[in-house]
Amino acid sequence: MKVFTAISELKEFLKSGRISAVREGKELQIGLVPTMGYLHEGHASLLRRARTENDLVVLSIFVNPIQFGPNEDLDRYPRDAERDLALAEHEGVDAVFMPSVEEMYPQPTKTKVAVAELTSKLCGATRPGHFDGVTTVVSKLFNIVAPNRAYFGQKDAQQVAVVAQMVKDLNFDIEIVPCPIVRENDGLALSSRNVYLSVGEHESALILSRSLKQLEADVYSGQATTVMEARQQLMQKIGSEPLAEIDYVEIAAFPGLTALQETNSLSSELKAHGAILVAVAVKFGTTRLIDNVLLTGKGEAIHV
Amino acid sequence: MKVFTAISELKEFLKSGRISAVREGKELQIGLVPTMGYLHEGHASLLRRARTENDLVVLSIFVNPIQFGPNEDLDRYPRDAERDLALAEHEGVDAVFMPSVEEMYPQPTKTKVAVAELTSKLCGATRPGHFDGVTTVVSKLFNIVAPNRAYFGQKDAQQVAVVAQMVKDLNFDIEIVPCPIVRENDGLALSSRNVYLSVGEHESALILSRSLKQLEADVYSGQATTVMEARQQLMQKIGSEPLAEIDYVEIAAFPGLTALQETNSLSSELKAHGAILVAVAVKFGTTRLIDNVLLTGKGEAIHV
Repeated sequence: MKVFTAISELKEFLKSGRISAVREGKELQIGLVPTMGYLHEGHASLLRRARTENDLVVLSIFVNPIQFGPNEDLDRYPRDAERDLALAEHEGVDAVFMPSVEEMYPQPTKTKVAVAELTSKLCGATRPGHFDGVTTVVSKLFNIVAPNRAYFGQKDAQQVAVVAQMVKDLNFDIEIVPCPIVRENDGLALSSRNVYLSVGEHESALILSRSLKQLEADVYSGQATTVMEARQQLMQKIGSEPLAEIDYVEIAAFPGLTALQETNSLSSELKAHGAILVAVAVKFGTTRLIDNVLLTGKGEAIHV
Repeated sequence: MKVFTAISELKEFLKSGRISAVREGKELQIGLVPTMGYLHEGHASLLRRARTENDLVVLSIFVNPIQFGPNEDLDRYPRDAERDLALAEHEGVDAVFMPSVEEMYPQPTKTKVAVAELTSKLCGATRPGHFDGVTTVVSKLFNIVAPNRAYFGQKDAQQVAVVAQMVKDLNFDIEIVPCPIVRENDGLALSSRNVYLSVGEHESALILSRSLKQLEADVYSGQATTVMEARQQLMQKIGSEPLAEIDYVEIAAFPGLTALQETNSLSSELKAHGAILVAVAVKFGTTRLIDNVLLTGKGEAIHV
């Protein structure tokens, strides 16, 4: 496993790999897993998927300052390079790219890549500028690595939708591969930010996965709950946890994130749209967690 | 010469060219000349430069709707595909890419690439959104063609500065090659829009090149004109033409387009900044023309 901090050296490595492959009559398939580090089993699942689908797996680790708001947790975002590298090695990563902020932003960036509409809702509404920071840094990583495929966790469902829209709109020659949410045994969706939670907050936060799972079961068992009722039920359940402070509870078509008919049943809206995202953002103490469930036709893959 | 209207077919063509080159132990060098068609000798000069520096020259012809404002000349922008193809053939172009609007924007684009600061001045001030349209479509073309070099005319000096900034900020692996302005024998800078001019307007418009040339001569001959005086002199000269309606006369550092010290002499500011752009936009009748001169140290190349 090679570790790169310089863009130029990573590019040289990838270029020589591509050239060697062509000389052997093949086309090198590169899979990129972009992360902010402090890796957990969710990231590992992306790396494993990338490993099975590509000749070369690149893991990027970069806590991207421009996707954090002024009052967010950039400074205290957890980091552990040593453990990350051990996990990467264990998952058979070929190249780790861990640039400094100066390497990625040698001058303050004047250029932004921004996706409209999709970013005005859900996390975009409470984290202004967040997704512009994401699409800008992802564009940079795409240009540096030029992967065939890039892997993103479906926990950040809106991010998946936004990045897929960007790829389509800007003609990036890259397949976006969304991967299922990985959870603790108790149901909590894995997140690097879970480390912030006290034992009591962690216990409280289980309401998220529990209530989402319940809603999913209700819909699949054919209950005629309307969109409005489903949202209200979720708000009530989550709100009943004393430590929970709701940021949003949203139900929208996926990946367009367009609004649904509030008075229609969720299952009829599901039939109309093909996929529906139920997404929540809730603060427990100072820690803001997100979770979601993607309702689809039975056994259907996620298409973005 | 091949002509492509489908993105997928152009990409297939370029890919097989790249693979063949690697098999012969070389790396295919691709030069892209992005244009809106209605080609003139200015475009031809870009194609010739690209021809000398690359194995494969791609000319794109696309009148990009999203870089036109609602009251601009999108609908009447001149087009002549047959003549363009003949010129391209004559200049030894390998591939012409002339997509439809539907091919480039199969869905209304939600994604924009925007460069701040540089785009708030000069043409950006009077054409809001124009440069976002340019950087967005250029990003698309860069992703489709993945050229080693891209050629832009220095007549659109601000465009050169903006695209170069984007390339740097987003880590595009592409060299931006600015090429000198090409002029009619009478001095008028070549532009596809010159076709709009009546004989009288054309005659009036010569004031632009004449007054810019005079200013350049004054500076290089060591006259101690201040930035403020130089701008006033230009405004006066151009304003003395009855048909001229000035949009702007600007003097700024290049390529940053930052303001100069108004009361310093142009030559001392030139020493301080290395390159200074003197740019004008003036309407003659309904036709808006731009022209500029780039002041540099003697014989220095343009660096962006």
